[in-house]
Amino acid sequence: MTTHADLPATGAWGPGDHPGRRRFLTFATDHGFAVESGTVLHDVVVAYETWGKLNEDGSNAVLVCHAWTGDSHASGAAGRGHPAPGWWDEVIGPGLAIDTDRWFVVCPNVLGGCQGSTGPASAMPGDGRPYGSRFPVITIRDMVRCQARLADHLGIERWHAVTGGSMGGMQVLEWAVMYPERVMSIVPIATCMQATAQQIAWGVIGRRAIRLDPAWQGGDYYESGVGGGPSEGLGVARMVAQVTFRSDNVFTDRFGRELVDRATVGDTFGLWQEFEVEQYLEHHGDKLARRFDANSYLVIGKAMDLHDIARGRGGVTQALDRFAGASLEIGISSDMLYPEYQQRAIHQARIERGFDSEFVRIESPHGHDAFLINLNQICEPMAKFLDRV
Amino acid sequence: MTTHADLPATGAWGPGDHPGRRRFLTFATDHGFAVESGTVLHDVVVAYETWGKLNEDGSNAVLVCHAWTGDSHASGAAGRGHPAPGWWDEVIGPGLAIDTDRWFVVCPNVLGGCQGSTGPASAMPGDGRPYGSRFPVITIRDMVRCQARLADHLGIERWHAVTGGSMGGMQVLEWAVMYPERVMSIVPIATCMQATAQQIAWGVIGRRAIRLDPAWQGGDYYESGVGGGPSEGLGVARMVAQVTFRSDNVFTDRFGRELVDRATVGDTFGLWQEFEVEQYLEHHGDKLARRFDANSYLVIGKAMDLHDIARGRGGVTQALDRFAGASLEIGISSDMLYPEYQQRAIHQARIERGFDSEFVRIESPHGHDAFLINLNQICEPMAKFLDRV
Repeated sequence: MTTHADLPATGAWGPGDHPGRRRFLTFATDHGFAVESGTVLHDVVVAYETWGKLNEDGSNAVLVCHAWTGDSHASGAAGRGHPAPGWWDEVIGPGLAIDTDRWFVVCPNVLGGCQGSTGPASAMPGDGRPYGSRFPVITIRDMVRCQARLADHLGIERWHAVTGGSMGGMQVLEWAVMYPERVMSIVPIATCMQATAQQIAWGVIGRRAIRLDPAWQGGDYYESGVGGGPSEGLGVARMVAQVTFRSDNVFTDRFGRELVDRATVGDTFGLWQEFEVEQYLEHHGDKLARRFDANSYLVIGKAMDLHDIARGRGGVTQALDRFAGASLEIGISSDMLYPEYQQRAIHQARIERGFDSEFVRIESPHGHDAFLINLNQICEPMAKFLDRV
Repeated sequence: MTTHADLPATGAWGPGDHPGRRRFLTFATDHGFAVESGTVLHDVVVAYETWGKLNEDGSNAVLVCHAWTGDSHASGAAGRGHPAPGWWDEVIGPGLAIDTDRWFVVCPNVLGGCQGSTGPASAMPGDGRPYGSRFPVITIRDMVRCQARLADHLGIERWHAVTGGSMGGMQVLEWAVMYPERVMSIVPIATCMQATAQQIAWGVIGRRAIRLDPAWQGGDYYESGVGGGPSEGLGVARMVAQVTFRSDNVFTDRFGRELVDRATVGDTFGLWQEFEVEQYLEHHGDKLARRFDANSYLVIGKAMDLHDIARGRGGVTQALDRFAGASLEIGISSDMLYPEYQQRAIHQARIERGFDSEFVRIESPHGHDAFLINLNQICEPMAKFLDRV
């Protein structure tokens, strides 16, 4: 049983930490920024990174949207302020599929996140103490409206393309529906138009695991002095996600039924004796608790469950019809979390209305995470698509 | 947010409660019963129910094995001691597929359970206090060895058939491998020869959710005076199981994205505001906490993760080859927890060795739980099989 005493109360990046490649936009300093749930936020910060150069007519900008526990560091080496290399380091860069010699690439950390943008661990204007339980429920649309402010700030009237996988893909779809005139083309990957009941169920389970941890303290654990934060609860939540991110086959091939301590096999069994798959999941849970804030995990997860491009728009088709640009939908053969039928549904809806839409299926045993693994299968269609639209 | 203050510390049946149809066998009063993990148990109780009459040559006995949170009440109405009707009430009875006019049907509560058989909530001989954390890790083989004692007691030398779904099917397979001379035929349903890494992962997550609940108290919550037991943790564990027991399609059809309180849709959102699927899962979690003991949930879940007919036997085929009787393997088209390929693997291994084996696929959208739902598809092949073997 791992002890979590050495974990920080939150894995959030703080203003005292090295900024790395991050740049920051602060807005809503005068009038505030009302999120969909009604709360008005002030002094909203968007942390972001850029690669390449915006051309004179501003026509070469590509927006990359990150997933649940991602951040603005989509490309580039690990280094100060960035404990890991970019999560799409093999996709974005000079001469790569999203070629930074040609495109001006922008990746913002989402609202509600914990890697520089305003989120529950941020200091709340007024008293300067962490928002904690005072941070409102937010939606994918709120995230996208923040990104639109960033586009204004950077002088980008219209994105050549908006792309991202998983929750990144939800932002992609909302960009197309909310700002169709500002989006030329979209590449949504392993995502959906509306979260399904099963996707919501996985989210609910993870949130309740965090709530179960006494160290969560109703969301106000930052200054509690108890230390540690709800790292056990976040760990269990992450375990649920990690299983849904992968696949039965890959787990069997990788772990089988091996026990961590082989010496004890067939000898004696303990209730908490670990199978290799358990150690793997625990490792991922611990790792997340070190780099991510549990409250951000909660509010971003809730935003995904609330994701529904039809909400207030009369239906999925009515929403999607607002966007007349080109699209490339990418699905993954073994995705149990966002099954391929969901991306095919987007493609189907678009071709039925006569829009320019391509569908690409990634053949992979890796499940949902294939959008971070089988990069060669993403790069080729992505490069071609960016080139032709 | 439901409060759990009104829940009992354990949903276990206790000796002071009405026995209902239960009968009891107590064994290991002299020499003790050593479980596979090494601990020796004394005064082991097996609660069981029977239907029909054993014929003179003892050739008409059918053993029915229950699943994770099941019990001995496989058939019969609800009533005192049995809050719900039998879990296979439409399968077992006069004139039904397992015809009690013809077969003598036996269903025992498993070792480690909480519905009359010895489990963590039982009084430990010696001090008479609940086992709690002192209850050992047990295996499917331990459960089956208890059932063999019951067979001795009832004068059953050889079962005409042994059947059960899910964990019930694990017992079925162990019966065939451990006591091939005592088993004429088997009907394993929606089960596996070895728990996979993904199945173990789901189990691990549930156990950790229970451990996270401060009311679990290391397993010794029965006499704590704090009350309630780890019902929140058990609830989250059950939520995980409930999602894996069902299917994406059925969840979508049944719940979609409906919020419990429709008035608030598009109005405001709360972090703990419930979708209908969340309320459904919470309801199932609460329901389980009222009728089941969290420690039983832990040890039975662990037994399933340890399930491996190959352990100590040189391999799956070597183990399976011990049994030369007839078998009917039943799989479910939409089972995400014990996918159909696992039952086909049993069938395949058996026909390759020239044994008598049939395979039936249940066409159902209901996922793993179809073995408790699509009963007509089980009854027909079951009746034919029992008749011919």
